[in-house]
Amino acid sequence: MKKKVGLIGFGRAGKAIANVILQNQEFSLDWVYRRSTLLEKRSVPEFLGFESDEPGLIYSSSSISIDEVIKKHPVDFIVDFSSHETIFNYGAIAANNKIKIISGVSHYSNEEIDFLKQISNTTVVFWSPNITLGVNYLLFVSKFLKKIAPWVDIEIIEEHFKGKEGLSGTAIKIANALNVESDKINSIRAGGIVGKHEVIFGFPYQTVRLIHESISREAFGNGAIFAAQNLISKESGLYNFEDLLLPYFSH
Amino acid sequence: MKKKVGLIGFGRAGKAIANVILQNQEFSLDWVYRRSTLLEKRSVPEFLGFESDEPGLIYSSSSISIDEVIKKHPVDFIVDFSSHETIFNYGAIAANNKIKIISGVSHYSNEEIDFLKQISNTTVVFWSPNITLGVNYLLFVSKFLKKIAPWVDIEIIEEHFKGKEGLSGTAIKIANALNVESDKINSIRAGGIVGKHEVIFGFPYQTVRLIHESISREAFGNGAIFAAQNLISKESGLYNFEDLLLPYFSH
Amino acid sequence: MKKKVGLIGFGRAGKAIANVILQNQEFSLDWVYRRSTLLEKRSVPEFLGFESDEPGLIYSSSSISIDEVIKKHPVDFIVDFSSHETIFNYGAIAANNKIKIISGVSHYSNEEIDFLKQISNTTVVFWSPNITLGVNYLLFVSKFLKKIAPWVDIEIIEEHFKGKEGLSGTAIKIANALNVESDKINSIRAGGIVGKHEVIFGFPYQTVRLIHESISREAFGNGAIFAAQNLISKESGLYNFEDLLLPYFSH
Amino acid sequence: MKKKVGLIGFGRAGKAIANVILQNQEFSLDWVYRRSTLLEKRSVPEFLGFESDEPGLIYSSSSISIDEVIKKHPVDFIVDFSSHETIFNYGAIAANNKIKIISGVSHYSNEEIDFLKQISNTTVVFWSPNITLGVNYLLFVSKFLKKIAPWVDIEIIEEHFKGKEGLSGTAIKIANALNVESDKINSIRAGGIVGKHEVIFGFPYQTVRLIHESISREAFGNGAIFAAQNLISKESGLYNFEDLLLPYFSH
Repeated sequence: MKKKVGLIGFGRAGKAIANVILQNQEFSLDWVYRRSTLLEKRSVPEFLGFESDEPGLIYSSSSISIDEVIKKHPVDFIVDFSSHETIFNYGAIAANNKIKIISGVSHYSNEEIDFLKQISNTTVVFWSPNITLGVNYLLFVSKFLKKIAPWVDIEIIEEHFKGKEGLSGTAIKIANALNVESDKINSIRAGGIVGKHEVIFGFPYQTVRLIHESISREAFGNGAIFAAQNLISKESGLYNFEDLLLPYFSH
Repeated sequence: MKKKVGLIGFGRAGKAIANVILQNQEFSLDWVYRRSTLLEKRSVPEFLGFESDEPGLIYSSSSISIDEVIKKHPVDFIVDFSSHETIFNYGAIAANNKIKIISGVSHYSNEEIDFLKQISNTTVVFWSPNITLGVNYLLFVSKFLKKIAPWVDIEIIEEHFKGKEGLSGTAIKIANALNVESDKINSIRAGGIVGKHEVIFGFPYQTVRLIHESISREAFGNGAIFAAQNLISKESGLYNFEDLLLPYFSH
Repeated sequence: MKKKVGLIGFGRAGKAIANVILQNQEFSLDWVYRRSTLLEKRSVPEFLGFESDEPGLIYSSSSISIDEVIKKHPVDFIVDFSSHETIFNYGAIAANNKIKIISGVSHYSNEEIDFLKQISNTTVVFWSPNITLGVNYLLFVSKFLKKIAPWVDIEIIEEHFKGKEGLSGTAIKIANALNVESDKINSIRAGGIVGKHEVIFGFPYQTVRLIHESISREAFGNGAIFAAQNLISKESGLYNFEDLLLPYFSH
Repeated sequence: MKKKVGLIGFGRAGKAIANVILQNQEFSLDWVYRRSTLLEKRSVPEFLGFESDEPGLIYSSSSISIDEVIKKHPVDFIVDFSSHETIFNYGAIAANNKIKIISGVSHYSNEEIDFLKQISNTTVVFWSPNITLGVNYLLFVSKFLKKIAPWVDIEIIEEHFKGKEGLSGTAIKIANALNVESDKINSIRAGGIVGKHEVIFGFPYQTVRLIHESISREAFGNGAIFAAQNLISKESGLYNFEDLLLPYFSH
């Protein structure tokens, strides 16, 4: 039987994630919970133009509490792509019902992180600010190469569409993980480039390049599903993406 | 004190390796042993135009036995970039003297591999047909990604200079390691390209590319030194490159 | 005042083109003419969710003839992304009304090409099977480099999503233009890659790579607009993309 | 019969150029003229380890004047990879003898440029600070694309070995030619990268990348030979690389 998913947040990332979950055979999208009343009471499959027997009902927080939604439609996972403070609304009830939480929220305050830790005593809590498999893999194996060759020269190139302001958050995260200065991040802003990250490892007589190219936001959906698959048999606790990748190294 | 190295083989790869060892602070090049009598009794530093206090004497197998060379100049490591059958000439004496063996020979017969195993009961024996750090890293982390996402689409591009015949051995090794058919290896032959390998992992909404670019044969030298550094404290046994990389994963 | 455009064909390419024309300041989308009765009498801006004062009315060929549409809403350009035989329906009336024709149809029969030539005596007719600026630029400057260095080694890499069958038409066109065998086309099929073409020119001591990456079908729209801009002051005749690029070389 | 070449300057670039000329069937290396007395009176083929019937005699300016060298061994071309002021030593005599001059000198003063112009009334004078075919092609077709699409977003990436200081001169030249600010030049310094220049043209829905990768300095030699081939039938005058590429556009 499919594992049931409730999705909190239905912005651009939320919609892409709903799209992916609906097409996946292991998980069903039971509901979406969002702040806006737009699309309220419609179903996601119908909204996205899918044939699907998954309910995917859209609820608005202005009409119904998350507690009631969960009571009406119990789920195995809550996937949260809303804003940081939402965790306080559903965290306790999710924990009490042993619903596993997968959060792709970009940033949490210290207080919110403390709360994540607290509820992770009772249920599985996973948080990854960039939830794509590819970027997390890149991060992981980049750190590994740096460990093997601590003296290697590292440069980062990140390419995005014209309007994007500031350094890419992912590039900053890579730089921090590799302990390189942010002046080693080279930002390209041109046309409609969706998103590309390249880590260059310069050795005296060879060069290694690790490249991640984004095609669309649906990659978040696949990341969330990968997380869900790898959290099914996990004990209560707070996890990040690296925790899910590490076991694949064992022989 | 520097660890002492004897080098067997002084072809193009051997020369490049000698070049790198001479410039390294942890290892000294004590002698070179080769079949040809060319350059016999000259010193490698002088031949390569270096100032160096490392002897780097060049011996020819037509004038002196390897046993005598080892007796005159005991070493900690033998680095072997000669041909496959040479192992029978120096393997036993190296093992008896606890000299660690680092072989970059491309191919050994089954009989030779059996001999490697036998002497590895007594000393450290390391064999890697492609001894560059970058290629072995690529191989390692490619297998890791395949394990994480067994269903991912994989394609390999290998680029080399115009004249190179057949598929690149490294590309074949990558294909085998990832269990992909050789028709997924795309061979580019153009101009003077030194050597480039790219593994493409195609996900539905993102692409990961792992690229290795060779600059020169000296990369073999750095690989040999990396092996030597990581073999110093190892027990007797037969090792390959993956065995050296694996410990870097432990936290 | 904006130049008026009528669009024939409203499949995936047609929709992308409509999208781009609607956002352009120099051209207005006056109508769409399509075979299907889907969306009939609705307006494109409303369908695509735009605020726009451009009419963009959708007509179906099952309800109204193209002659009537043109009579009701005279236009300066007809952009044709329908199928090859459609040219017979609108070619004569377009020519009689001096409406410039921009066709992005993939393939025409000899008979249809003869017809294009015939009407090009009376009006401007432009045909490009791949109407993106980038691909045509690549083609142009690749031929130029081949002319400068006829002996250079050339290889082509084309990358597309998993399901795409056969060689990419663009890659074949590049190969033909450069007079290289089709075994120099290396096809990568992986995940969701939208479309990438790379032409590698291998020189003995240097490599030149020309790369085109598609982000979305909207690129056809920009190509059509580029064509329209460069056809405004042209005399009657049959033009292709190269004819539009060539004048930019003059000093 | 082979065209005769005299080479002025025998540093790293000069040696690479000599290497290429010696292997070329259309041109012979008759002599090298250099400041240093190192290698004086030896022959280049013997020094580089070639079998060749081309003289390639090495003269030092401390022992013999360039006038005498030219008198003893008249040549068709002088290729100059020495320093900027050398032009005053041989310019007049070259012009008087209708010897064509190919200079790859990085920088000339205004006074020296005036002198180049003056002697170009009498003979063919060619000057290109970066004399590789690939870089000049890149420059040429980049300017062409900018002309076609003046509003396109442009970014430049230049990659070189760790130690290289300052922006690459070629990258600056590209930026100037395309009229983009130098903050669009992204400099990567890592390991032993020989030299890579990438110009990214970002369109809303597509990206064009033009890449030049250096393999070795011998590329200068091929550039010099390309220049010589294209100057054979030219009238007196001052030429740059673009002047040689332009005729290839004519149909």
